[in-house]
Amino acid sequence: MSTIRISEIFGPTVQGEGALIGKPTVFVRTGGCDFRCSWCDTLYAVLPEYRRDWTPMTPVDVLTRVEQLTGGKPILITISGGNPAIQPLRRLIALGKERRHRFAMETQGSVHDDYFVALDWLVLSPKPPSSGMSTDWAAFDACLAAAGGGPRTVLKVVIFDDADYDYARMAAARYPLLPVHLSVGNHTPGEPNQAGRDGVDQAGLLARFRWLVDKVARDRWFEATVLPQLHVLAWGNERGV
Amino acid sequence: MSTIRISEIFGPTVQGEGALIGKPTVFVRTGGCDFRCSWCDTLYAVLPEYRRDWTPMTPVDVLTRVEQLTGGKPILITISGGNPAIQPLRRLIALGKERRHRFAMETQGSVHDDYFVALDWLVLSPKPPSSGMSTDWAAFDACLAAAGGGPRTVLKVVIFDDADYDYARMAAARYPLLPVHLSVGNHTPGEPNQAGRDGVDQAGLLARFRWLVDKVARDRWFEATVLPQLHVLAWGNERGV
Repeated sequence: MSTIRISEIFGPTVQGEGALIGKPTVFVRTGGCDFRCSWCDTLYAVLPEYRRDWTPMTPVDVLTRVEQLTGGKPILITISGGNPAIQPLRRLIALGKERRHRFAMETQGSVHDDYFVALDWLVLSPKPPSSGMSTDWAAFDACLAAAGGGPRTVLKVVIFDDADYDYARMAAARYPLLPVHLSVGNHTPGEPNQAGRDGVDQAGLLARFRWLVDKVARDRWFEATVLPQLHVLAWGNERGV
Repeated sequence: MSTIRISEIFGPTVQGEGALIGKPTVFVRTGGCDFRCSWCDTLYAVLPEYRRDWTPMTPVDVLTRVEQLTGGKPILITISGGNPAIQPLRRLIALGKERRHRFAMETQGSVHDDYFVALDWLVLSPKPPSSGMSTDWAAFDACLAAAGGGPRTVLKVVIFDDADYDYARMAAARYPLLPVHLSVGNHTPGEPNQAGRDGVDQAGLLARFRWLVDKVARDRWFEATVLPQLHVLAWGNERGV
C-alpha cells in the first residue's frame, strides 16, 4: 500500500480560518509542495531540507494516530500541507469515511486527483500576487471538475494588499457559484524553527482585518466572507494548535 | 402601520460572531428587552432610561435607511437588540424579502412570534447562569415551533465560566438537531456611554478562547463550534461597527 508523507498530525483543536472556522478538527499535514509562496507559514512542510522530518505513513497509521487523539470518536479531519493533492490519499479518505470521519482538504488548486469527489469539503485557495506564484486556471478548473458535485467547494484567498484583493475579485467573478472567503494574511509568519506566540503582530493583523472589512463594505462586495486567522491571533506561530 | 423602536442601524460591516461570522451585514438594533443580563454589552438598547434614544420607525423607514447604507444593494440584515422578538417585525421582513434582502434574527428565545418562520436565520441565544437570568424552556420551545422549517435555526451560548459551559452542554443535549455555537463572553463590556476600542482586555479574551477550545477538545465535544467575538477583538466596545 502506498504511503503518505506526513509532516504532522495534531489536535483536536478548532479550524482557525475559512468556511469551517471554529469547528473542532484534527489536522493532518502532508509534506511537500509544488509552490513556494513568499509568505508561506509552513515551510517545514514544504522545503526539501525538512524532508527528514516527514514520516511515511499508511492510511491505517494515519487513522490510528487521529483516533488516538480523538479517543476513537469521529471528527472532521482537515488535510493540509504543503500541497496535500500531490499525495496518494484515496485510501485514507475511503477508510476514514467508513469510520465516520469527515474530510476537508485545503489545496491551492494546482494538482487534482479523482479522490476529490469523495471529500466533504474542498477548500481551493488560489495564491494571489503577493505570494510570487502565478495561477494556472486550467489546472484549477481540473480540480473543480474532479470534485464535481461531491464536496462543498469554497474559494479562499489570502489577502495582503490591494493587488491581492483585486485578484480575489477576479477569481470570484470567474467562479460566481463558489462561496468566497477572504483571509487576512499573516505578515509575521516567523522562521520555521523559531515559531512561538510572541513573534506575531496581533495589533497589525487586527488592523488589516479592519482594513479588509472596510474595503469589502465600501465596494459592496456582500457575497464575500471576511475572516482573520484565529489560530494566529490566539496562538501566534506556535505549531500543533 | 405599527412602528418599530429602533436603537441603531449601522453597517455594512461583518457579523462578528456565531454561524454567520465574517458575513457582510447591516445591523438593525431594536430598543427594549425583557431580560437584564449582568454582562449585557448593549444596555443602551435595553434600559428604559435610554428610551429617548430609540426612534419609532416604520418598516419602510428602516429599509430606506438600510438601502442608503448599502447603495440599494440587497444584503443580510441582522436584527438584534435588546430583544427584537418583542417588536412588530412581520411587515419589515416581508417587505425586505421582496427587495431581496435576507434576514437573521438574534434573540434569547423568551418571546416568539409568527414571523419567525419567514426569517432566513434564527439565532437562539439562551442565557447561561452567569447572566443572572433563568431560562423558560417552554417559551424557548415555542420559539422553535414558531420557526418551524422556515429559517436555519442555530443555538448560540455565551460562555464565561464552567457553569455556563455545563449549561451549554445541557442545552445542546436538549436540542440535538440544532447546530451549537459557543461564543467567548466579553468580561470588559464597558459602560454604555463610554464605549471605545481601548477598554477591552484583548489578551484576556484570547486566553478565554484558548481555554474554551481546550475544554471542548478535552471533552471531545466535536459537534460544537467555538468562536470569539471578532468585532470586540477588532473594534473593542466601539458602537456602529
